[in-house]
Amino acid sequence: MVLSIGEREIIEIISGLIGEFKGDFLGFGDDVVAYDLGGDMLAVVKTDMLIDYTDVPPGMSYYQVGWKTVTMNVSDFAAKGVKPQVFLLSMGVPRGFEAKSLRELIEGVRDACRYYSISYLGGDTNESLSLTLAGFLFGIGFKNRIVGRRGARLGDIVAVTGEFGGSAAGLKIALGEYSAPKSIAEKLLRFIYEPKARLNEGLKLSSIDALTSSIDSSDGLAWSLYELSNAGGVGFHIYNIPVVEEVKLFADINGLNPVDLAL
Amino acid sequence: MVLSIGEREIIEIISGLIGEFKGDFLGFGDDVVAYDLGGDMLAVVKTDMLIDYTDVPPGMSYYQVGWKTVTMNVSDFAAKGVKPQVFLLSMGVPRGFEAKSLRELIEGVRDACRYYSISYLGGDTNESLSLTLAGFLFGIGFKNRIVGRRGARLGDIVAVTGEFGGSAAGLKIALGEYSAPKSIAEKLLRFIYEPKARLNEGLKLSSIDALTSSIDSSDGLAWSLYELSNAGGVGFHIYNIPVVEEVKLFADINGLNPVDLAL
Repeated sequence: MVLSIGEREIIEIISGLIGEFKGDFLGFGDDVVAYDLGGDMLAVVKTDMLIDYTDVPPGMSYYQVGWKTVTMNVSDFAAKGVKPQVFLLSMGVPRGFEAKSLRELIEGVRDACRYYSISYLGGDTNESLSLTLAGFLFGIGFKNRIVGRRGARLGDIVAVTGEFGGSAAGLKIALGEYSAPKSIAEKLLRFIYEPKARLNEGLKLSSIDALTSSIDSSDGLAWSLYELSNAGGVGFHIYNIPVVEEVKLFADINGLNPVDLAL
Repeated sequence: MVLSIGEREIIEIISGLIGEFKGDFLGFGDDVVAYDLGGDMLAVVKTDMLIDYTDVPPGMSYYQVGWKTVTMNVSDFAAKGVKPQVFLLSMGVPRGFEAKSLRELIEGVRDACRYYSISYLGGDTNESLSLTLAGFLFGIGFKNRIVGRRGARLGDIVAVTGEFGGSAAGLKIALGEYSAPKSIAEKLLRFIYEPKARLNEGLKLSSIDALTSSIDSSDGLAWSLYELSNAGGVGFHIYNIPVVEEVKLFADINGLNPVDLAL
């Protein structure tokens, strides 16, 4: 998100204007919108947009672009412990885009939906200047299961479902800023080319009521901790940051701090 | 939709690749996706994308662009007799876009959502080359109420909820191809600048079980009749085409055939 207006101003404009609308169980600014259907039921919906020239790193295939478009929406459901059921895709496709590339892209979307057991059931297609993919995800959630950002309490343990630093290091390699031996580079590039949402972990953790609050950490560990802290009104002591082994090696080779990459 | 690939090829690629996914009660290619939630319940979802340089006629304000983005999604729900409940918006916003314009746009979205009694609860914002608005609409539907495209039977009466020709004539005026006296032009321009979905009509007609099949006719009367005929396996005799009064005047002044404008 690089805009002259500034992301904070945009969020202020939108939240100011839509504040009157009721029914969102988690409140504005959480990972998903959870609309109260009455009783215990929630309609959980999410949209996340990918635009080629800001969200697609060099070297990413169209198949991987399709995969990522699904995954970035699923990761928010994972963090809330909600099972996604239906995926829709609105596409803006540049003039001259090849049928072969479109097929690869949709195959990536299809395979990601298979992987997460979601039904991909349609969408809309238009001409646009740059490849633009707006994914929409729907699932039924339950009030006593869904995990918001707000519930962190004194005494809670901060836990993560994986190690950090892979996507930051992978991006530096993809952009050609730094390099690494082939086996390390391949492992790190996979974090940005083939991201996987921790859906099973999220569903299982919420089903056993293990979480007081949760957030999708795709936007970085430091930002995610800040958001959870801010929403919950508690601070965190962090003693140990789990860093991907190859990130440590990559950092060592290039004189970087692995903790900076992980945050 | 202007693409080198061709819309039919794109639909073939997508329908071929997503054909394996189950759960859509109405089937691929209907106005909305109606996902079977078990029992009588359906999760009805729809996404429709607006891109400024193909979908925004000259002279349209940002407020009206926001209004249209909601309405084009609502009109599909209206045709199916399903009450929309939640609207989300993914926006691609060009660099340098002004905060004032963004505010107007979101006000248009908000006011349209108010008008149709929908909760506008969030979305996503990114930078893009052209203003790109992907709307997403959700509502709960019921199997014994929802109206698909497929049910037309011999003996049915073809009915419409309004008169035709207004948007075709309005577009010709907006594009400067033809002109009309001010009072006529203003009325016709309203069809393209401030479209209104016939939501109450659709909800009432489906609630009294008055419809065997139905389609959103925003893409034109001829195309809509063809689709209903094709999906239902019946033909239609059309004796009378309801044309907006000002369209007849506009056609008369400019030597056009009002029926061509209405189709």
